[in-house]
Amino acid sequence: MAIILLISGPNLNMLGTREPEIYGSDTLLECVSDARQAAEDAGHELEDMQSNHEGALIEAIQQARGRCAAIVINPGAFTHTSFAIADALASFDGVKVELHLSNPSSREEWRRTSVVAPYVTGTVAGFGRGGYRLAIDAAVGMIGGAE
Amino acid sequence: MAIILLISGPNLNMLGTREPEIYGSDTLLECVSDARQAAEDAGHELEDMQSNHEGALIEAIQQARGRCAAIVINPGAFTHTSFAIADALASFDGVKVELHLSNPSSREEWRRTSVVAPYVTGTVAGFGRGGYRLAIDAAVGMIGGAE
Amino acid sequence: MAIILLISGPNLNMLGTREPEIYGSDTLLECVSDARQAAEDAGHELEDMQSNHEGALIEAIQQARGRCAAIVINPGAFTHTSFAIADALASFDGVKVELHLSNPSSREEWRRTSVVAPYVTGTVAGFGRGGYRLAIDAAVGMIGGAE
Amino acid sequence: MAIILLISGPNLNMLGTREPEIYGSDTLLECVSDARQAAEDAGHELEDMQSNHEGALIEAIQQARGRCAAIVINPGAFTHTSFAIADALASFDGVKVELHLSNPSSREEWRRTSVVAPYVTGTVAGFGRGGYRLAIDAAVGMIGGAE
Amino acid sequence: MAIILLISGPNLNMLGTREPEIYGSDTLLECVSDARQAAEDAGHELEDMQSNHEGALIEAIQQARGRCAAIVINPGAFTHTSFAIADALASFDGVKVELHLSNPSSREEWRRTSVVAPYVTGTVAGFGRGGYRLAIDAAVGMIGGAE
Amino acid sequence: MAIILLISGPNLNMLGTREPEIYGSDTLLECVSDARQAAEDAGHELEDMQSNHEGALIEAIQQARGRCAAIVINPGAFTHTSFAIADALASFDGVKVELHLSNPSSREEWRRTSVVAPYVTGTVAGFGRGGYRLAIDAAVGMIGGAE
Amino acid sequence: MAIILLISGPNLNMLGTREPEIYGSDTLLECVSDARQAAEDAGHELEDMQSNHEGALIEAIQQARGRCAAIVINPGAFTHTSFAIADALASFDGVKVELHLSNPSSREEWRRTSVVAPYVTGTVAGFGRGGYRLAIDAAVGMIGGAE
Amino acid sequence: MAIILLISGPNLNMLGTREPEIYGSDTLLECVSDARQAAEDAGHELEDMQSNHEGALIEAIQQARGRCAAIVINPGAFTHTSFAIADALASFDGVKVELHLSNPSSREEWRRTSVVAPYVTGTVAGFGRGGYRLAIDAAVGMIGGAE
Amino acid sequence: MAIILLISGPNLNMLGTREPEIYGSDTLLECVSDARQAAEDAGHELEDMQSNHEGALIEAIQQARGRCAAIVINPGAFTHTSFAIADALASFDGVKVELHLSNPSSREEWRRTSVVAPYVTGTVAGFGRGGYRLAIDAAVGMIGGAE
Amino acid sequence: MAIILLISGPNLNMLGTREPEIYGSDTLLECVSDARQAAEDAGHELEDMQSNHEGALIEAIQQARGRCAAIVINPGAFTHTSFAIADALASFDGVKVELHLSNPSSREEWRRTSVVAPYVTGTVAGFGRGGYRLAIDAAVGMIGGAE
Amino acid sequence: MAIILLISGPNLNMLGTREPEIYGSDTLLECVSDARQAAEDAGHELEDMQSNHEGALIEAIQQARGRCAAIVINPGAFTHTSFAIADALASFDGVKVELHLSNPSSREEWRRTSVVAPYVTGTVAGFGRGGYRLAIDAAVGMIGGAE
Amino acid sequence: MAIILLISGPNLNMLGTREPEIYGSDTLLECVSDARQAAEDAGHELEDMQSNHEGALIEAIQQARGRCAAIVINPGAFTHTSFAIADALASFDGVKVELHLSNPSSREEWRRTSVVAPYVTGTVAGFGRGGYRLAIDAAVGMIGGAE
Repeated sequence: MAIILLISGPNLNMLGTREPEIYGSDTLLECVSDARQAAEDAGHELEDMQSNHEGALIEAIQQARGRCAAIVINPGAFTHTSFAIADALASFDGVKVELHLSNPSSREEWRRTSVVAPYVTGTVAGFGRGGYRLAIDAAVGMIGGAE
Repeated sequence: MAIILLISGPNLNMLGTREPEIYGSDTLLECVSDARQAAEDAGHELEDMQSNHEGALIEAIQQARGRCAAIVINPGAFTHTSFAIADALASFDGVKVELHLSNPSSREEWRRTSVVAPYVTGTVAGFGRGGYRLAIDAAVGMIGGAE
Repeated sequence: MAIILLISGPNLNMLGTREPEIYGSDTLLECVSDARQAAEDAGHELEDMQSNHEGALIEAIQQARGRCAAIVINPGAFTHTSFAIADALASFDGVKVELHLSNPSSREEWRRTSVVAPYVTGTVAGFGRGGYRLAIDAAVGMIGGAE
Repeated sequence: MAIILLISGPNLNMLGTREPEIYGSDTLLECVSDARQAAEDAGHELEDMQSNHEGALIEAIQQARGRCAAIVINPGAFTHTSFAIADALASFDGVKVELHLSNPSSREEWRRTSVVAPYVTGTVAGFGRGGYRLAIDAAVGMIGGAE
Repeated sequence: MAIILLISGPNLNMLGTREPEIYGSDTLLECVSDARQAAEDAGHELEDMQSNHEGALIEAIQQARGRCAAIVINPGAFTHTSFAIADALASFDGVKVELHLSNPSSREEWRRTSVVAPYVTGTVAGFGRGGYRLAIDAAVGMIGGAE
Repeated sequence: MAIILLISGPNLNMLGTREPEIYGSDTLLECVSDARQAAEDAGHELEDMQSNHEGALIEAIQQARGRCAAIVINPGAFTHTSFAIADALASFDGVKVELHLSNPSSREEWRRTSVVAPYVTGTVAGFGRGGYRLAIDAAVGMIGGAE
Repeated sequence: MAIILLISGPNLNMLGTREPEIYGSDTLLECVSDARQAAEDAGHELEDMQSNHEGALIEAIQQARGRCAAIVINPGAFTHTSFAIADALASFDGVKVELHLSNPSSREEWRRTSVVAPYVTGTVAGFGRGGYRLAIDAAVGMIGGAE
Repeated sequence: MAIILLISGPNLNMLGTREPEIYGSDTLLECVSDARQAAEDAGHELEDMQSNHEGALIEAIQQARGRCAAIVINPGAFTHTSFAIADALASFDGVKVELHLSNPSSREEWRRTSVVAPYVTGTVAGFGRGGYRLAIDAAVGMIGGAE
Repeated sequence: MAIILLISGPNLNMLGTREPEIYGSDTLLECVSDARQAAEDAGHELEDMQSNHEGALIEAIQQARGRCAAIVINPGAFTHTSFAIADALASFDGVKVELHLSNPSSREEWRRTSVVAPYVTGTVAGFGRGGYRLAIDAAVGMIGGAE
Repeated sequence: MAIILLISGPNLNMLGTREPEIYGSDTLLECVSDARQAAEDAGHELEDMQSNHEGALIEAIQQARGRCAAIVINPGAFTHTSFAIADALASFDGVKVELHLSNPSSREEWRRTSVVAPYVTGTVAGFGRGGYRLAIDAAVGMIGGAE
Repeated sequence: MAIILLISGPNLNMLGTREPEIYGSDTLLECVSDARQAAEDAGHELEDMQSNHEGALIEAIQQARGRCAAIVINPGAFTHTSFAIADALASFDGVKVELHLSNPSSREEWRRTSVVAPYVTGTVAGFGRGGYRLAIDAAVGMIGGAE
Repeated sequence: MAIILLISGPNLNMLGTREPEIYGSDTLLECVSDARQAAEDAGHELEDMQSNHEGALIEAIQQARGRCAAIVINPGAFTHTSFAIADALASFDGVKVELHLSNPSSREEWRRTSVVAPYVTGTVAGFGRGGYRLAIDAAVGMIGGAE
């Protein structure tokens, strides 16, 4: 049994109330709950954290080293600028899944570039709340879980 | 019960023999088989086609209109240049999942831009053969299948 | 009496059903019929072909050499990428009219660049089905037809 | 019966004497005469004006509001820089046709970008004097004239 | 004896009072006077005009056709944007000298690009009031005057 | 008591009728009236002018030298291209306020760059008719008026 | 009576001592005091906060939802990079005023791009301490306060 | 004895008649004949194919795997856009020679970039019909043929 | 005797365990110890702090004003994006040394641009743990220490 | 009486034989002779040197310090790349005239950028052999010679 | 019998010892010897020179005028920057072959642009020592040698 | 005991007299003397050379192979353009330190890019004369000298 860490970046604590026409009306609690169920279905444990502070996200990644088998991260708007989160992910040896609720390519131009993408295992984007289960399944598949 | 169409673009017929250090040693047949299993697990039917001809891929998308509920497409290298495939996808009203075996962001610069991405529902990338099941699950989730 | 060749590129076979809010509800058959009428009004003959295959479009242009007086071409999405079609047009000595149904400049950024434009006689764009008659008239005017 | 306004921008008053190898030896008077004939053939009336002053062109467009059904405009070199003309055109609710004598794409690089193009109905370019009749026909077609 | 036309663009009427640390304290009148002397020294006649209106500058160039042997033009800030002036100059068959008081390359970035430069015979820039005599001498030299 | 000059650029004479969903339904007369009231509230006098001619705007700025304490200017579409207006403003020693009705950053890409901005004291943008009073207040504050 | 929230970003706590030749010698306390006075003059209440932490600024914006009628924000250097603040502002439904002490366009190149600007109502920049009152007045005007 | 595959891309079937001032008057048959002679001189066998269809070129490359020692390819206009051909070449383990009749660097700007170049062994360009023998010699030299 | 402040940015707390093939196996503690020794050798005192929080780094710089003679800063990945740290450094009047363990120019493209570099006295990069002593020596040399 | 140094860069020793359709049929000797005559007409002395070696040109500039009143330099193709010559010119306190035979703006794109231009007093370009006298006159005018 | 000049640029004198994994272990002497043999096989004579000095390379090209029938040049790193060598080659009327040992397109980005390429007859690149014979053969073929 | 080679590029022979407000008033002789002292303090020997000739600098680097343990190089303006020096450095297996007197990032834009930086061990920049000792110390530290 492995630990999977689910990290949510800035403004994701507002999920459900924030621009529901883009992000849907599900709350982060519901999304995390889906992810937990998916992790447990595969015999794993889910930890989760959310922060609007880049430094806190970096430290969550750092503290996962040697303790978690995988990180699923939705870096929010830090996706497009945070080389510091990219560096932290590069230092993490386990599975790394980048997750987005909406499809960044069909929105503003600046959302099309992810500076963390070169440092993750893979990406799941555009499936709303459903993406949480998919991202956990993806992580589980890469760490040898029950697929 | 819905039909999901799995489309594979140029050079994917070489899967398993082509640069296995990047794309893995699984064949396209095995990947498609996983996808079919995932579709059937959700009570759906899978159709699949592969072509190295852009025109053939366009026509496969066109012919899915009004007949298939979802398209899962790995456009191969056409991902980065084919506005014609993008146009065809834009005309398809169902669920559209862009799928990549490897993580395009950790390879050559030109692989970082997908011209079809703005026209799909979402993306699954970087999980190798495992991505096939994930992409079908993603499509199923968006068309109301049994998740 | 001269032959005018009307070439339609990828996805134009879907005209009428494809995104009618952009391309209108007229079918390609109706557009070609207008073009034929315009050609015959000027005492010329119209040939037409449509393909989603870049190679087939190239060969249609090649085979017009020494046989057709003018080509009217709507290259669809190949407008923006196909240097091969541009090369084929450059080799054709007759009149060459680039035709678009919608106004490419008022849509996505990538539609603003035509790689074939430097190799044609002129362009007609943005007039929907009406553009077919205009493009034929333009061709006729350049080959000395009855204006 | 509608009024169509034909606007000619800077240096078009020199037509016929100015670089005839590019623009032909027809004068603006002859071009306007063709346009008038085309308008009258369709049961409409043509007004025309030419100016080398951007401000005068803007005001001609402004004064067409509520009075003219269509504007055919060859903005000359202002095509490539005048957002002020673009703004004026954006405020005009009727049909707007951008017209060029030569094919801008086969000349200097800077002629390839039209800043007014996103704000017009459509474009006719590259057919020399013949383009004047075509542009009027295009406008007529869009305002419901006799085609 | 030939006529040389000296054209001064926007804000040059303010010379002497406008930012004297950049443009010097000499007035346009004094600069033109130097130019006239230089022209007369070579047995030629000088005409001059200044305008802040792009259209007026274009028309001055147009009216020089067939009447003046050379144009010396300081297009002021229109240097960097006016393709319409460039087009007018391209239509003038005589000698064309681009003149600047200050050195555009040692100031703001946008002053480094002259859109008219490809259409003139040559350039004199950076010599303040002294440049007026040099530009006339340059023009005289190219039209066969007494050097 | 000082004079404040309010300058309005191209197409602003159409205010109220031009694209009211963007610019509001207030006329320029009403906006200027607000500005005059604001100036008089601070014990100053307002002069105003509007032109669609770049040259006329340049000359209005030139003539303000030594006579007006501040210029409030909404350069309309010239904002994005007119280095000549920028040069004129650079020569004016008083307070200079750039004013926009709508927020240029939330519209087309080309509206995001102001070539005059480096040469003004400050900017007020996005507050519609209300911006006129704010811009006058801003000017008054910088020239020592009653704040 | 409404609440207006005034948010100050990184390094603004140093105001008065930090590079006074650019930012003036007034302290943030004095600027906030002016803003408070302006709010109270209009019958509203002012809240203020300053932080050098991007996360804290994001959370201040989040907590204003449903509680404050307007936000006036000087994001300091985060103006140019923080898409996370932009996302937070996009989620806030009230009036949003971007405020800068100096004129960003007349300084380093990188200060010319604001990534938050597309998501605010309007901007006030370049008027030093005086801008605080103007920004509050701008906000008040947009929320229906006593102008 | 090894097999060398000579692949010719779009429009090369028109060689001899197509723009002879650029490509010469030799036909593709003559060029291939030279190549065959060169291969046989070195004790090898030449296979050749030409297609205007990108997919057919891709499949020719795929089918050379394990069967041919070298590929000499003139991708025509696909040189500049076809990442799919580049991907196919990347999967081929033998010698790969990129061949061009004319010198792409002395023509249009877009001909200066080859997207397949990073994936070939080397390039021969600009020597017209003579380049066919040179390219075969180059391939032979790299596969250990009799040079 | 002066105080030198050594600031370490994000992920530097992981030094020694994080990608040792790039950053070496020395810990931050050892690096700081070298720096302290170098400072004391020159008769100065070293203070040090590390944070993954941009805001904390900004405040450390702010609090050094009037108290420390020099700052040695390794901003980690914030080097490439933090204009807020750049602004804080610009406000610090003492010696400022930018320090990097590895050579940023021989790694990813994005590491080649330092947004803080224009605001420091000088840079020491690429010498691993040895760079800590060098950076202190550099600072000491600029503040008049015993070299 | 002052010394003016005339420096000619790479390939200018070939003048008269090298591409006479661009550079004319006059030799460098004749051009230098004109320059000498112009210098002597003004009561000054001319020294001249030519080299194809960047280092030799740099040293000629260095050795002019404190000895020559002006440098007239035609840097040939080094104009577009040699920051080392630019640095040398920046260190020279006298008058500096950049001279070109042809008009660089009407030729290849790369000739449009001069990296030395920001470091000279002014430029004379496009007047062929006649430019040599003009450049000397320009230098003389700036050092107080007899104009 | 003609003379072919083989020119080798900077660092090629180190061939065999310099980065043999890229450039091979053959020395320049061996490469030149192959070239000489190839020239003599075709009944021609080979001259060769190598220099690390741009000026010396330029002069070697200049001195070949009217004396050599062809130049084969490997400009080394000057390939990417030396417009002066490009100018010298442009003045040489004979055959010009650009030669590279390795394939520049599969290395650093900056090696992908050759500023001399537009001015040569053709290019041979990527075939190591074997390229020397090929380049001579290419030159011989273009000057009418025994192929 | 090892040999360290100190190489100084173009215009550094002018140090002390050249723009002292940027480069200081110390001569190159004094700087080299500091470097020698530093080398000898560490038990090593210093060789030095200066040249304004790129070729001479290249050859100095070449001749250091197998003889010197480290190179400290201030390439002057060649820093920004000389790929040939970069290539020479890439071939040198010892320690390589890039040294600059001033901070290139706080000057002209073109000084911000070093083309040699990717090929050196590390960089010391901005510490004036003091940088010479630091660069030697840096080199010594990397070759195992007495730190």
